[in-house]
Amino acid sequence: MKQWVYSFNANEAAAAKAAAFLINSEGLLANCLDPSVSALHEAAGSSHRLEKNKFLLGSKGAALKEMTRLGLPVPAGFTITTEVCNYYWQNNHTLPSSLAAEIKAEITSLERATGKIFGDSANPLLLSVRSGAAISMPGMMDTVLNLGMNDEVVACLIKQTGNKLFVLDSYRRFLAMYGEVALGLHSCLFQEASQLEDGRVTLENLEKTIASYKQLIARHSKLGVPGDPDEQLYSAIAAVIKSWNSERAQVYRRLNNISDELGTAVNIQAMVFGNKGDDSATGVVFSRCPASGENKLFGEFLLNAQGEDVVSGTRTPLPIDQMQQALPQNFKELTTICKELELYYRDIQDIEFTIENKKLYILQTRSAKRTAASAIKVAVDMAGEGLISKDEAIMRIPLESINKLLHMSIDYSHDLPTIAQGLPASPGAATGMAVFHPRDAEEMSRHHKVILVRADTSPEDIQGMYVASGILTSRGGMTSHAAVVARGMGRPCVCGVSKLNINEREEFFQINGVTVKYGDIITIDGGTGKVFLGETPLIQPVFSAEFSALLSWADERRDLQVRANAETPLDVITALQFGAEGLGLCRTEHMFFDSAKISLVQEMIVALDSDRRKEAVDRLLPMQIKDFKELFRLMQGKPINVRLLDPPLHEFLPRREEDKEELAKSLGLPLAVMEQRLKSLHEVNPMLGHRGCRLGITCPEIYQMQVQAIFQAINELKLKEGIDTNLELMIPLVCDVNELRQLKEYINEAIKQVNGKEDVCLGTMIELPRAALMAGQIAKEVRYFSFGTNDLTQTTYGISRDDIAAFLPEYLNKKIFAVDPFSTIDEDGVGELIRIAISRGRQANPGLKFGVCGEHAGNPESIEFFHKLQLDYISCSPYRLPIARIAAARAKIECG
Amino acid sequence: MKQWVYSFNANEAAAAKAAAFLINSEGLLANCLDPSVSALHEAAGSSHRLEKNKFLLGSKGAALKEMTRLGLPVPAGFTITTEVCNYYWQNNHTLPSSLAAEIKAEITSLERATGKIFGDSANPLLLSVRSGAAISMPGMMDTVLNLGMNDEVVACLIKQTGNKLFVLDSYRRFLAMYGEVALGLHSCLFQEASQLEDGRVTLENLEKTIASYKQLIARHSKLGVPGDPDEQLYSAIAAVIKSWNSERAQVYRRLNNISDELGTAVNIQAMVFGNKGDDSATGVVFSRCPASGENKLFGEFLLNAQGEDVVSGTRTPLPIDQMQQALPQNFKELTTICKELELYYRDIQDIEFTIENKKLYILQTRSAKRTAASAIKVAVDMAGEGLISKDEAIMRIPLESINKLLHMSIDYSHDLPTIAQGLPASPGAATGMAVFHPRDAEEMSRHHKVILVRADTSPEDIQGMYVASGILTSRGGMTSHAAVVARGMGRPCVCGVSKLNINEREEFFQINGVTVKYGDIITIDGGTGKVFLGETPLIQPVFSAEFSALLSWADERRDLQVRANAETPLDVITALQFGAEGLGLCRTEHMFFDSAKISLVQEMIVALDSDRRKEAVDRLLPMQIKDFKELFRLMQGKPINVRLLDPPLHEFLPRREEDKEELAKSLGLPLAVMEQRLKSLHEVNPMLGHRGCRLGITCPEIYQMQVQAIFQAINELKLKEGIDTNLELMIPLVCDVNELRQLKEYINEAIKQVNGKEDVCLGTMIELPRAALMAGQIAKEVRYFSFGTNDLTQTTYGISRDDIAAFLPEYLNKKIFAVDPFSTIDEDGVGELIRIAISRGRQANPGLKFGVCGEHAGNPESIEFFHKLQLDYISCSPYRLPIARIAAARAKIECG
Repeated sequence: MKQWVYSFNANEAAAAKAAAFLINSEGLLANCLDPSVSALHEAAGSSHRLEKNKFLLGSKGAALKEMTRLGLPVPAGFTITTEVCNYYWQNNHTLPSSLAAEIKAEITSLERATGKIFGDSANPLLLSVRSGAAISMPGMMDTVLNLGMNDEVVACLIKQTGNKLFVLDSYRRFLAMYGEVALGLHSCLFQEASQLEDGRVTLENLEKTIASYKQLIARHSKLGVPGDPDEQLYSAIAAVIKSWNSERAQVYRRLNNISDELGTAVNIQAMVFGNKGDDSATGVVFSRCPASGENKLFGEFLLNAQGEDVVSGTRTPLPIDQMQQALPQNFKELTTICKELELYYRDIQDIEFTIENKKLYILQTRSAKRTAASAIKVAVDMAGEGLISKDEAIMRIPLESINKLLHMSIDYSHDLPTIAQGLPASPGAATGMAVFHPRDAEEMSRHHKVILVRADTSPEDIQGMYVASGILTSRGGMTSHAAVVARGMGRPCVCGVSKLNINEREEFFQINGVTVKYGDIITIDGGTGKVFLGETPLIQPVFSAEFSALLSWADERRDLQVRANAETPLDVITALQFGAEGLGLCRTEHMFFDSAKISLVQEMIVALDSDRRKEAVDRLLPMQIKDFKELFRLMQGKPINVRLLDPPLHEFLPRREEDKEELAKSLGLPLAVMEQRLKSLHEVNPMLGHRGCRLGITCPEIYQMQVQAIFQAINELKLKEGIDTNLELMIPLVCDVNELRQLKEYINEAIKQVNGKEDVCLGTMIELPRAALMAGQIAKEVRYFSFGTNDLTQTTYGISRDDIAAFLPEYLNKKIFAVDPFSTIDEDGVGELIRIAISRGRQANPGLKFGVCGEHAGNPESIEFFHKLQLDYISCSPYRLPIARIAAARAKIECG
Repeated sequence: MKQWVYSFNANEAAAAKAAAFLINSEGLLANCLDPSVSALHEAAGSSHRLEKNKFLLGSKGAALKEMTRLGLPVPAGFTITTEVCNYYWQNNHTLPSSLAAEIKAEITSLERATGKIFGDSANPLLLSVRSGAAISMPGMMDTVLNLGMNDEVVACLIKQTGNKLFVLDSYRRFLAMYGEVALGLHSCLFQEASQLEDGRVTLENLEKTIASYKQLIARHSKLGVPGDPDEQLYSAIAAVIKSWNSERAQVYRRLNNISDELGTAVNIQAMVFGNKGDDSATGVVFSRCPASGENKLFGEFLLNAQGEDVVSGTRTPLPIDQMQQALPQNFKELTTICKELELYYRDIQDIEFTIENKKLYILQTRSAKRTAASAIKVAVDMAGEGLISKDEAIMRIPLESINKLLHMSIDYSHDLPTIAQGLPASPGAATGMAVFHPRDAEEMSRHHKVILVRADTSPEDIQGMYVASGILTSRGGMTSHAAVVARGMGRPCVCGVSKLNINEREEFFQINGVTVKYGDIITIDGGTGKVFLGETPLIQPVFSAEFSALLSWADERRDLQVRANAETPLDVITALQFGAEGLGLCRTEHMFFDSAKISLVQEMIVALDSDRRKEAVDRLLPMQIKDFKELFRLMQGKPINVRLLDPPLHEFLPRREEDKEELAKSLGLPLAVMEQRLKSLHEVNPMLGHRGCRLGITCPEIYQMQVQAIFQAINELKLKEGIDTNLELMIPLVCDVNELRQLKEYINEAIKQVNGKEDVCLGTMIELPRAALMAGQIAKEVRYFSFGTNDLTQTTYGISRDDIAAFLPEYLNKKIFAVDPFSTIDEDGVGELIRIAISRGRQANPGLKFGVCGEHAGNPESIEFFHKLQLDYISCSPYRLPIARIAAARAKIECG
């Protein structure tokens, strides 16, 4: 019959015995170290129910219900379900007609449980009214405590408790909270009107404050605080429900990807008071340390206080340890309950409690937010303790936060020329070319690491920030746009270097007499706020023993091979450290960008005829041989998938006037001829232009040089150093099988010329819709497909990754796209092409192997999809490897 | 047993009776006017055999064989099949070992048939050795006549014929031809060594010429002319086979899309002589006029001459009529045979004949090349005569040549300021903006008609020439690159305006004191070579009665509805004249380019906020209402498929410095702000950028204005003019169904505001691979799909149409692509996506209609594909409509 509310009270506790038997007399887990113990299984079996409750009752309401079942000391109360909230927003802001009667019945039963009467002047019941959504939105929604007070009730309570200080303190708190929440007055009004000094509370200043609050409310609100406690209650309930759609709540949900449909529950409980004197207290405790993961209680408490005091910072809370002295019996109880809850929820708990005259109450428990380091330590420890299985430990890691463990730091053992000091806005160190425009960042980042330097950043700079290795601003503090976004993205950031004199138009900055121009190399340390001139040695992050253990568990579990996209020695070393089982994408063009080669590459491109081109190509050959030897040496026989030159040629060409002049001079060409040639290389849509294997077909000498370099390197390593190599050779941007046939001829010619082994393991990128559709023909010419999901997404959607910023935010806002398709693979469209390619490819060539080398290969949701498709490997950037390894294991655990 | 040769001689004539009975005593068709007559059917039944023969025997050999069967006077002979040619090229330039024996046997049987002996000095047999491929390659391959002569044979022949002049004339011809063909000497050597003056032939100068030729051959060739006729024969046969792969033959094949695999046959026949005196003659006759199609003999002949004289132009041939006086009996015979052959082949015939001492011989017959006008008249006449069916008439038209009938011409009844006179290089008149770079032509032609002005053109300009409405050059003649290419493309072209002073760098030209700058409008008349300043009234081409008849037959036959892509009144009028049944694509952006609107459009785009944008949009509204009213009025209730704004906004923005300044001034913005804004609108890959429905979602006010304008126009026309309208409203560039859902909301809002009918017939472009794949979802939101095959090809292949020129020629050359996928639809890849979209769309929404509006909708092969897919309509540019109508009918005829 109850439709809208669920009560929790001691009667339910009986049902909790099944769970409670897990705790022995010391309140510690006794016989559960073996994960096969049935209790654990039962607990696991309950998780579905818990999950369901969470969506109906909110996470707080569900926890209160569970804790009551477990027989823990929870103040009696009831929960108005999230369905009421949804009803409210779907029915012109009205509440269900039957709700009032249900609430009335609950209040009556609450009165029965507590022996107090709501609104009674003899033995009044006070209530707390708290919001509670399924997914925690800390501080975003509203709460009213001490509800049910009025002047009459106050007088009675003073008489009843003999504690006027406590009653007046509760009353002023109620007035302020009700004023803010139910009447919508701004909190700063109450702060200003408060007569308390430095949080010190006396009868006198409490009385003054109450008077001042009443005056304030009378002046600002037509409604005022109703004397009738029932009216207070309904107004508070409505206010909590309304707070679901407050602007800040909406923004929070959007930022955290929380559905608007969830709604909030409203939890109504008998008040318990931590502000009843020095045998009362309130606090927050974690069952383990949320920062380090250490297995001991961690938290804070305040004597004689209500919960808000701990959070608001008006008084400084004490570390939880000190409760052992202050309230030893309560501390012991709390310790037991913490373990009990951790055992029941099998996760580190974040628990709110209140002690009223030495009686402990638990007000809330939830799985604790924690740092990545803590999450890993806790998960691995718990698996060691037998509390959870290894698989569960793997499933527990908040993947994206792992990034933070992977940051580089600066090696301060060297003497470094600091040029500036700013705020340490986002941790990690980064080195790169200074660029002054987000668009430059995008362009240059294709082949270089860049540091984006701005006076400040704005939302339109996001793409530029994303591609940058680090961000440096002259304005803004630790919570500026730049700082917040950089932390979110895991990009190192130094903010607020106020002496930084940036000229964005002419693209340089000056500080302390040093001038840094576009393209100059700088280094920033987002952990210290220091800025350095030039490149400085960076230290690789070190993994904790627990992290290494977790990764090795993941490696045992996963089916997908995990490789890296890398080609420079530095990246390859990083990749190996992070567990790469091979290189899934070695972009040879990245080898062309060092200063020794770039002018030869430019010469090769600008060459007006095939002879002149051949000349430049011949001079590149020995350099490429050296590059490949280094690569093969580092990889020690692990597979290396070398992709032949891919990007449009004009990407290699100079853009700036002075660079053009220099190139013309070094090539002995008149500037006008150079410019004409550069103009002729310009493309309207370079992404769809003369690149990839199209270059290989029109200028065979380039691919042939690359192939010769590779095989020469292989031969020399074998002969002179006895090093084995494992080459895979990949042709990019194929749209027709004839391209492959033609290129195989060119490649075999080149291999013959250097006496290479002709049965090269040849593969191709599947990165165009047509390639996916024609996979049956293409498969017969190659041994593997590597899905280039970046380009495949671009062409399938008809969206350029470089230009999406103009409309993606609006698309996400309006929910046209649920996610950015360049971050998470589009299973329906792009995914269907991949499925088609796999099925046709496999049918035509049963031995064909499949991999992915687009950005998606480092994205957990996408990795699950690739696992389901039974690909052979995924290949991502070195820093994504740990995430990819864990995500691959998770996919196996979840999908089998 | 005969493997390599096929003979034709009178013995075969018996078999021909079945066909010959068609001709009555006057040599005219008697009872065949009814196409049901069995004879016609039999003839049709033979076409498969004819076709097969053609590939084995070459078209000449096949025709000789058929004519012999028909009992026509063909000199006896035999054909060495194309398989010998292929054998030669596949087997290291050797001939099959058994060939010699077969030739020997054929010669023997030829000797039996003629009563002459090859190489005999008493009664010598002379031979002609002629090439003959399946597809005619006029003048590309070699021929040797009078083969079998040497000094001895010459002496004998003089004795035998008593006609020394004839014999010496034949001898000198033989020496020159053998020298050129078998010995490879350059023809100009023989021209120089000739002692004949103005073609006048005397015994003396013939003897001198023969001596001079012998000397010439001795000096230049190690081999010389062998005395042995057998050796002559084998050398000549080898030479003819080799000529298949001469450079000019290869080029010709590539240009005309003829396969290298076909090979040439070699036809060897007993010589007959038109140069035996004034009762001898040689000539070429057409069974109807190949220029006009008129049903009377048309041709030329020369008395006392050999075939080459007619072609070479050394003597002026006489019109065929005059043969009636000169050789009345032969003329009568020839007339009969012409009809007979036309009847047999059911097509206009191009016939070579020779008369030797009043005996008529037919040397070759083939279907005549003809002008488009002639082709149409002949086909329609023949269908009228019952010779062929209407379907056959439709199948007969060389589609591409129809273009030539559709050219505009200049209305010279007006007084026009001619500014220049050049060569009339390619017919038709065109008006457009002068542009000086092919790339500008490509860019500007998206929204304007352009005339490409160049000093001269080169192959890299092709794409620019293709998109231009006309071409004007200062250098080069009627066979210059510009002229040849323009004629091939059907683009009007004026060449060689030598006084034209073009400054390509600064983009202007001067002539006779007039300066024409980039963007100025000029008009050219490729039929007269005149150039005019400004726009001049053009006259629409007029269709002949036959062409109209043919089109109406095609209309009766086809299933596909044929519509036009048009939006300006001029184009819409043209489209209606050319038979458009509706508009399949009305690109609203094209309405934005007139000078009245462009500045408002620019204002709308540059607007920094939504309010400012709304202001500009509001001022555009009345202009758009006017546009749409005009359109609906013209179309009088025929369907109009209006596509909402599609291209990237920056396409509308100024590029030139002075234009930017002007815009900044007119908008009251500082130039720096303008430039910043323009820069922010720049896109790396505009084709994949912020365009199409993405604009509709981020700037709803633009689409809403367009929708309001449309419905306001509809309402006003209905109320004030009683005009009914048939609107289809199309959303471009959809990749996700949510785009449609969101836009439907915006559109319905806009419709409501102007009290429009809300159940608009809404459709979407399917032009991205993802849209095709998601067609099942998309179909539920719309009533029709229009396949935008241009963009779909771009994204499926990952190739930008604007940038393909850099590699397409190489791709065609290397046979990686068989055809340009932007001309002919790729049935395998792009076509599969279309098939997927149709099948999923139809399943989700059985009433869904399908059309195509890309360039492919005007391409006959592609139209056949669209017919097979059972689309509802195709929509092409107005000038392609006649071709599309016929092609659609053909598809129906061929595929049912």
